[in-house]
Amino acid sequence: MSHAQYYSFLFKVFYSHLGFWDLVIMQTSGLTATNDNVVSEVALAQSALLTQHCSGRPQSPGVVNCFAYSRTTGLRVGYLALSDVSEVMAADPDIFVWIGLFEPPAEVLDEVQHEFGLHELAVEDAARGHHRAKIESYEDSLFVIVRTAQLVDREIVFGSTSLFLGERFLITVRQGASVSYTTVRAHCEKHPQKMKAMGPGYVMHGILDFIVDNFLPITQKLGKQLHELEGEIFSEQFNKGTLRYLYDLKSELIKLRLAVIPLREICGYFLYHDNEDLKNYFPSSAIPYFRDIQDHVLGTLDAIEGQSEVLRLAMDTHLALVGVGQNEIVKRLASWAGILAVPTLMTSYYGMNFSNMPELHWYYGYYIWVAIMVLASYLLYRKLKKVKWL
Amino acid sequence: MSHAQYYSFLFKVFYSHLGFWDLVIMQTSGLTATNDNVVSEVALAQSALLTQHCSGRPQSPGVVNCFAYSRTTGLRVGYLALSDVSEVMAADPDIFVWIGLFEPPAEVLDEVQHEFGLHELAVEDAARGHHRAKIESYEDSLFVIVRTAQLVDREIVFGSTSLFLGERFLITVRQGASVSYTTVRAHCEKHPQKMKAMGPGYVMHGILDFIVDNFLPITQKLGKQLHELEGEIFSEQFNKGTLRYLYDLKSELIKLRLAVIPLREICGYFLYHDNEDLKNYFPSSAIPYFRDIQDHVLGTLDAIEGQSEVLRLAMDTHLALVGVGQNEIVKRLASWAGILAVPTLMTSYYGMNFSNMPELHWYYGYYIWVAIMVLASYLLYRKLKKVKWL
Amino acid sequence: MSHAQYYSFLFKVFYSHLGFWDLVIMQTSGLTATNDNVVSEVALAQSALLTQHCSGRPQSPGVVNCFAYSRTTGLRVGYLALSDVSEVMAADPDIFVWIGLFEPPAEVLDEVQHEFGLHELAVEDAARGHHRAKIESYEDSLFVIVRTAQLVDREIVFGSTSLFLGERFLITVRQGASVSYTTVRAHCEKHPQKMKAMGPGYVMHGILDFIVDNFLPITQKLGKQLHELEGEIFSEQFNKGTLRYLYDLKSELIKLRLAVIPLREICGYFLYHDNEDLKNYFPSSAIPYFRDIQDHVLGTLDAIEGQSEVLRLAMDTHLALVGVGQNEIVKRLASWAGILAVPTLMTSYYGMNFSNMPELHWYYGYYIWVAIMVLASYLLYRKLKKVKWL
Amino acid sequence: MSHAQYYSFLFKVFYSHLGFWDLVIMQTSGLTATNDNVVSEVALAQSALLTQHCSGRPQSPGVVNCFAYSRTTGLRVGYLALSDVSEVMAADPDIFVWIGLFEPPAEVLDEVQHEFGLHELAVEDAARGHHRAKIESYEDSLFVIVRTAQLVDREIVFGSTSLFLGERFLITVRQGASVSYTTVRAHCEKHPQKMKAMGPGYVMHGILDFIVDNFLPITQKLGKQLHELEGEIFSEQFNKGTLRYLYDLKSELIKLRLAVIPLREICGYFLYHDNEDLKNYFPSSAIPYFRDIQDHVLGTLDAIEGQSEVLRLAMDTHLALVGVGQNEIVKRLASWAGILAVPTLMTSYYGMNFSNMPELHWYYGYYIWVAIMVLASYLLYRKLKKVKWL
Amino acid sequence: MSHAQYYSFLFKVFYSHLGFWDLVIMQTSGLTATNDNVVSEVALAQSALLTQHCSGRPQSPGVVNCFAYSRTTGLRVGYLALSDVSEVMAADPDIFVWIGLFEPPAEVLDEVQHEFGLHELAVEDAARGHHRAKIESYEDSLFVIVRTAQLVDREIVFGSTSLFLGERFLITVRQGASVSYTTVRAHCEKHPQKMKAMGPGYVMHGILDFIVDNFLPITQKLGKQLHELEGEIFSEQFNKGTLRYLYDLKSELIKLRLAVIPLREICGYFLYHDNEDLKNYFPSSAIPYFRDIQDHVLGTLDAIEGQSEVLRLAMDTHLALVGVGQNEIVKRLASWAGILAVPTLMTSYYGMNFSNMPELHWYYGYYIWVAIMVLASYLLYRKLKKVKWL
Ligand SMILES: [Mg+2]
Ligand SMILES: [Mg+2]
Ligand SMILES: [Mg+2]
Ligand SMILES: [Mg+2]
Ligand SMILES: [Mg+2]
Ligand SMILES: [Mg+2]
Ligand SMILES: [Mg+2]
Ligand SMILES: [Mg+2]
Ligand SMILES: [Mg+2]
Ligand SMILES: [Mg+2]
Ligand SMILES: [Mg+2]
Ligand SMILES: [Mg+2]
Ligand SMILES: [Mg+2]
Ligand SMILES: [Mg+2]
Ligand SMILES: [Mg+2]
Ligand SMILES: [Mg+2]
Ligand SMILES: [Mg+2]
Ligand SMILES: [Mg+2]
Ligand SMILES: [Mg+2]
Ligand SMILES: [Mg+2]
Ligand SMILES: [Mg+2]
Ligand SMILES: [Mg+2]
Ligand SMILES: [Mg+2]
Ligand SMILES: [Mg+2]
Ligand SMILES: [Mg+2]
Ligand SMILES: [Mg+2]
Ligand SMILES: [Mg+2]
Ligand SMILES: [Mg+2]
Ligand SMILES: [Mg+2]
Ligand SMILES: [Mg+2]
Repeated sequence: MSHAQYYSFLFKVFYSHLGFWDLVIMQTSGLTATNDNVVSEVALAQSALLTQHCSGRPQSPGVVNCFAYSRTTGLRVGYLALSDVSEVMAADPDIFVWIGLFEPPAEVLDEVQHEFGLHELAVEDAARGHHRAKIESYEDSLFVIVRTAQLVDREIVFGSTSLFLGERFLITVRQGASVSYTTVRAHCEKHPQKMKAMGPGYVMHGILDFIVDNFLPITQKLGKQLHELEGEIFSEQFNKGTLRYLYDLKSELIKLRLAVIPLREICGYFLYHDNEDLKNYFPSSAIPYFRDIQDHVLGTLDAIEGQSEVLRLAMDTHLALVGVGQNEIVKRLASWAGILAVPTLMTSYYGMNFSNMPELHWYYGYYIWVAIMVLASYLLYRKLKKVKWL
Repeated sequence: MSHAQYYSFLFKVFYSHLGFWDLVIMQTSGLTATNDNVVSEVALAQSALLTQHCSGRPQSPGVVNCFAYSRTTGLRVGYLALSDVSEVMAADPDIFVWIGLFEPPAEVLDEVQHEFGLHELAVEDAARGHHRAKIESYEDSLFVIVRTAQLVDREIVFGSTSLFLGERFLITVRQGASVSYTTVRAHCEKHPQKMKAMGPGYVMHGILDFIVDNFLPITQKLGKQLHELEGEIFSEQFNKGTLRYLYDLKSELIKLRLAVIPLREICGYFLYHDNEDLKNYFPSSAIPYFRDIQDHVLGTLDAIEGQSEVLRLAMDTHLALVGVGQNEIVKRLASWAGILAVPTLMTSYYGMNFSNMPELHWYYGYYIWVAIMVLASYLLYRKLKKVKWL
Repeated sequence: MSHAQYYSFLFKVFYSHLGFWDLVIMQTSGLTATNDNVVSEVALAQSALLTQHCSGRPQSPGVVNCFAYSRTTGLRVGYLALSDVSEVMAADPDIFVWIGLFEPPAEVLDEVQHEFGLHELAVEDAARGHHRAKIESYEDSLFVIVRTAQLVDREIVFGSTSLFLGERFLITVRQGASVSYTTVRAHCEKHPQKMKAMGPGYVMHGILDFIVDNFLPITQKLGKQLHELEGEIFSEQFNKGTLRYLYDLKSELIKLRLAVIPLREICGYFLYHDNEDLKNYFPSSAIPYFRDIQDHVLGTLDAIEGQSEVLRLAMDTHLALVGVGQNEIVKRLASWAGILAVPTLMTSYYGMNFSNMPELHWYYGYYIWVAIMVLASYLLYRKLKKVKWL
Repeated sequence: MSHAQYYSFLFKVFYSHLGFWDLVIMQTSGLTATNDNVVSEVALAQSALLTQHCSGRPQSPGVVNCFAYSRTTGLRVGYLALSDVSEVMAADPDIFVWIGLFEPPAEVLDEVQHEFGLHELAVEDAARGHHRAKIESYEDSLFVIVRTAQLVDREIVFGSTSLFLGERFLITVRQGASVSYTTVRAHCEKHPQKMKAMGPGYVMHGILDFIVDNFLPITQKLGKQLHELEGEIFSEQFNKGTLRYLYDLKSELIKLRLAVIPLREICGYFLYHDNEDLKNYFPSSAIPYFRDIQDHVLGTLDAIEGQSEVLRLAMDTHLALVGVGQNEIVKRLASWAGILAVPTLMTSYYGMNFSNMPELHWYYGYYIWVAIMVLASYLLYRKLKKVKWL
Repeated sequence: MSHAQYYSFLFKVFYSHLGFWDLVIMQTSGLTATNDNVVSEVALAQSALLTQHCSGRPQSPGVVNCFAYSRTTGLRVGYLALSDVSEVMAADPDIFVWIGLFEPPAEVLDEVQHEFGLHELAVEDAARGHHRAKIESYEDSLFVIVRTAQLVDREIVFGSTSLFLGERFLITVRQGASVSYTTVRAHCEKHPQKMKAMGPGYVMHGILDFIVDNFLPITQKLGKQLHELEGEIFSEQFNKGTLRYLYDLKSELIKLRLAVIPLREICGYFLYHDNEDLKNYFPSSAIPYFRDIQDHVLGTLDAIEGQSEVLRLAMDTHLALVGVGQNEIVKRLASWAGILAVPTLMTSYYGMNFSNMPELHWYYGYYIWVAIMVLASYLLYRKLKKVKWL
């Protein structure tokens, strides 16, 4: 294929798929104004094409994005139709692609599997979602699946993202509740130097970093909510809502921990795995970037562990305190009952009908008796108050 | 032995054992219509034999199935009598067998041990069942025993399955509650390519995968039941049934965890064991398939761990809440008793029989006193209501 | 030494020590009717000697048994006096001895130490007993000490057994509560082929297997007792005996776990230790036999762990339920007190002595009032019943 | 550059930045009176310069200190402006610098990053602070970030310190609550021999040692406060303040543990990491110094763990005891109510209005009855006292 | 130095320091009557000197003992002044010294550091005491510091012992509560063969063994005390002393565990450390002796762990039982109150003053009513007794 043929091929490809908004995003991201002074001839031509030919986007259902990037410049080259990907990649060895899928129908996933020769087990996991996070190295691609989490009205909803990393492609498959990776795309496209140096591996780092960075704010918000509840925890007034909330918070944290723990192993794979697999995807200078992700994973686990402990303590304390509060009231009511029992006995005493009860006939008998009753009650009251039974 | 002799031998063997239903199953599984285009001459001949000769099945007691498969085609060749197995295997080096036993009597097991030269300790474990899951590599076979679990009316019943894997045979011995492996057989026979590539190792993978896949729905159902109970957990009304159910659920989870934990090591054996043993049974391309099983084991353990924690929390919370609810009632009854004690004292007061009690003779004395009583009681009621003692 | 000389020496040795009962045991164990077809000339001669010469047994105090076995046949050759052991072993290189001691006095242990060159620290441990299970490899012998356990009337009593394994001897020293190893002896003597193949190592395996096999029934019995108690655990009626029993059960399990845990390491020593030490004592085919023991250790630990968790849960639940039950009664008594307080107040009301209380003089006043009282009490009763306070 | 040129350059540099107080500090630290007898020619000249030229200090905001030290003498040479650092270091290969920053603005941090070629991820972490402690080895520098803690009025406030260690520089960046490292500076400058031998590595050790040494007094103070509270823990009188304090103490300890745990790994890095990285920064004789730090970390963790356990025990005990105390009072009030109920019934008894109640008309009826009442009450009181219900 | 010169030098040295009691101790320890048949010429001369020259002992404050031993004979040669140690060691290469210090003043420790070239960090730790147990290998000495414990009136008091082991010296520094090592000295001197074979290493083993052996009796005594308390734990009568004691016991065990845990690592150092360091100090035959110590450490940790669990269970059970006991009393008092309330209502009933209450005027009305009251009360009593509310 000659250069001319190639460019006219690209022309056709991009003409039909690149939309207006793509250009807007690219402009605002400063992509067209590349900081890289050593832009190759080919890249310039690609750039030119990019600004010339574009069209309306959404293609196959479930395909959110499908962009080609140049390995020589690190810049985005254009938008591709899923069905054209293999031809474009075969035609231009300089190009790598980044495909973003969201709950793709089975046929789309099958097509992708076919186009990139993905392993059936990996595709099965990606299709099913809700999988424990794992990393698996297949013959010519690396497969990563992680749990993603979002806080929606005090409740954590989980999704999953699968990543297929090849030497020249990065495919993400999102399932369930998840944020789109527009932010990551913008970030990557702002650093063409790194896209150039690390290729699809840099994209994978960006997405993992983004997912992990999303865990910490969740634990922070939960921590804040817990802190706000501390007033109620230490009130002896029972409030079922508070308790229920603490219970739900604890259940959420348990789920969150289970989602985050396997990320430790995934980061460890990048850091301690000496296989040559990784050399295909990352230069050794990429290692600190994965250690940075691992730091956040460990920090998140620390936060979860700390909050879990405090939460359990809070529940135990609250329940015990509610019991203490209730007992306190019963205790005080019993004291009052005791105070009332004394004059009740005393009044009952002179309600007896014996014929010979001289005090009944004393002129001041009644007044003396009432005085004694009042005094006895008052002294009892003072006594109970003093020993803090009241 | 010439081809002719061999086929007539097979004819005799299969004639007497292959029944009508076998053919039905094979037909519905699409076995006769093989997807494999490269079917060897021998395989075709075998296939021919298969459709020609068959007879009534159940042979020795405890023998559920005993099929021969061709390593060249991956297809099922026919049903064998246990006593013929060694002769057939000696006669046809292309054949491997899959034998399924269910609670076999000692004699049958002895026969199998003798036919395949199994280790006495392995056979002892297989015979006894209810064994902690383990894997053991003997000289010319691999022995695996795992606990199986089923949920029967909210209760988990356990069984065990032993697997003997040789280069040319796979024997399963089920003990106690367990599902038959018909599903696995159907699955394997639908993938003759893989049967061809991995032989009995593929069958072993299929069975382990099936057993492990059966654990997760159990935890999911238990999780659902727990979720449905949450309403009752947070009711302050004590219900012994709820508590008993939570207790039983926790006990079940403890047993389930103990059954699943050793599966981690078993998967680890396939993944990290570098012995040449494994090379006899599996090509290295089989490793991701065992990692897939391990994922499910880990996912199940996560679920069990999470549910155990939530369950313990639920029990503690429920018991504490029941106590809170009871105390609340006692507290309110005590408040009511306090309210009643006041007019009781007051009525008792004018029940005294002193001669000189002028109020008794006031014309409105009675009415005034009753008014005071009602007012005092009402004020007390308001007061208690306000401080939430009532 | 010529054959003739040797046999006359053996004659003297055995003549004085082999008793009547030894022969009985050997007969019933089927020892004289050996299954081994390849019995050497020497063995036959030994066998002959064995049936010819025997005498009364118990020799030194603490010495339960002291037998010689032939390595060539695996058969028992005869009973020895402790003081003759070294001479016999020196005279006949084919012989290995199995000595069983029970709480031997210091002098006997000193003699044994001297005869076999045992390490002072090992002998110290064996003498003291009640030691944490351990394994130690000295220059020319292997030392193992393990805790043994027996269930005597719902209580676990512990003892210890020390084993000294040399290339040609196996010495057991039992301390405290323990079962004799007659069963093991019978088992070993029924398998002369294995005695031949593994020598004293096979005896050691047999004893360790026997000790470990004795742990599991203990946990099973405890588990059964716990299961039987579940009825009482869920009764709200407090029974101090139940609680005390649960407490003791838990304490026992803690002790049992501490006794079993180090056995894991001991099995591990046999399985993973690559020292040449082991080669002196065991052929590599012995490894699965030790793994079999390890399986039982792990199974026992699983059972202990599971039961400990359930037990703790049971205690917490029982104590909470007793509290719930007591509160329930107090609650209902308080409700009854409330019901009674109403008519008490009402009767007290018309016990007042005001002059002007017209109702007192109504003709049906009394009957109306009583009717109101009964109605009020009944309505209150219905109300309390409905809200389940009663 | 000739010596003369160099000195005049240094003259300019130091003239403008070294202030009066620097000299005072140096004098009191005994710096000018060096204990080192082998002071090189260059060092003497530097010393001379140091006492000659100095000026007012605070330069860029956030820069607390910026000193140059001689590797030949281990002595401080002078104060530098941040912008001159690279020139001075290039000019004089004998010099290494120690820069102390406190919450530096982004520009200052950028400048430092630029001057020393620090890794972007490390600078990001240093800027953000509140990071889980970690150590990371970049190409030509070592990055350490640790959490610092201070006890302010019974509350622990956390900060963080980042350290960048190069062959010829040590930069500290403090964020949040933290003590300045003046003490460390004084300590280092008192040991010029060690500054000479280990260079910036010695400074790093000093700072880490200082940070770690600050953790132990915190746990000791908390332990002391806990010990002082034990009196209140065992009082049955409920005091919400005590409970709240215990709760807060536990929360603090959880945070503190999370801050200290990763320090273990950091010390481990220095002790067990065999990379050649470390050789650039430390001689092997420095290892015991880092083990010394690790000892303190482990001691602190022991203290935290021990206190956490005691604290949890204290809370559980206190809450249970408060409940016991309240129940005790209720129990005694109920006993008193029982005692009063008896005479109340008895007085009510003779308040009945039956016409035919002969006792009412006995002359001593009243007195006998009162005597019986008093006696009954007294006996009941004695009985309850005896069974400890009262 | 000729033999004559050497002996006259030794004469001077020992003349002034060896006292009367030293000789007594040596005599009673059987030291002069050596069991060693191969006593060298030099040793005999030393022995001679020893019995000839001795004088009063206590020298520098804090120096408990300072003895020289002969490596050739393993026997004690004589007592030394601290200041002479280096000269004697230089003069006689056969000699090694054992110095015992107790809370030495800084100057004495400085002197020792100087004489033996000890590392500053080790000396710092030894001076401070109360340090987490650790082992550290410096260039020409091994440093060990361990926590020691003693049970004084139900309370554990802690001290620390530091050991400096060189090829020719062993220095112990005791701080805080601790027993003197006279017993160890006597033991070592009874085994000159081992002193000869292992030198100062044997002394170190003896001291570590002694320290570790002192832990187990503490846990045994605590265990016995706990067992004695079990009667009180299961009494429902609250006794604050019991609870306080359990609490203190738990706190002590936590401290004890923290003191013992690091000893595991210290033993591990001797057992698994392959450095050549150890070869200087111990022959490989010493390893079982350190494993023996490790056994005791593990046994002690087992005991502590077991007791901690039982203790926590005991506290929880006791507190719950006290609650149960109190509730029981309240329940029974409430039942009695219920029984009394019935006749109270009944007596109040006929205290009503209605004009028209015919029963009041029945001749046997009163008697009938009282009979009904008594019957009702009795039936209620029976009923409550039956349902165990009473
Ligand atoms: Mg997960
Ligand atoms: Mg991040
Ligand atoms: Mg980041
Ligand atoms: Mg782990
Ligand atoms: Mg762990
Ligand atoms: Mg994990
Ligand atoms: Mg970072
Ligand atoms: Mg599966
Ligand atoms: Mg699957
Ligand atoms: Mg199991
Ligand atoms: Mg584990
Ligand atoms: Mg395990
Ligand atoms: Mg999968
Ligand atoms: Mg744990
Ligand atoms: Mg066994
Ligand atoms: Mg067995
Ligand atoms: Mg033990
Ligand atoms: Mg262990
Ligand atoms: Mg077995
Ligand atoms: Mg645990
Ligand atoms: Mg942290
Ligand atoms: Mg320090
Ligand atoms: Mg220090
Ligand atoms: Mg960590
Ligand atoms: Mg130190
Ligand atoms: Mg410690
Ligand atoms: Mg010892
Ligand atoms: Mg000892
Ligand atoms: Mg440790
Ligand atoms: Mg020992």
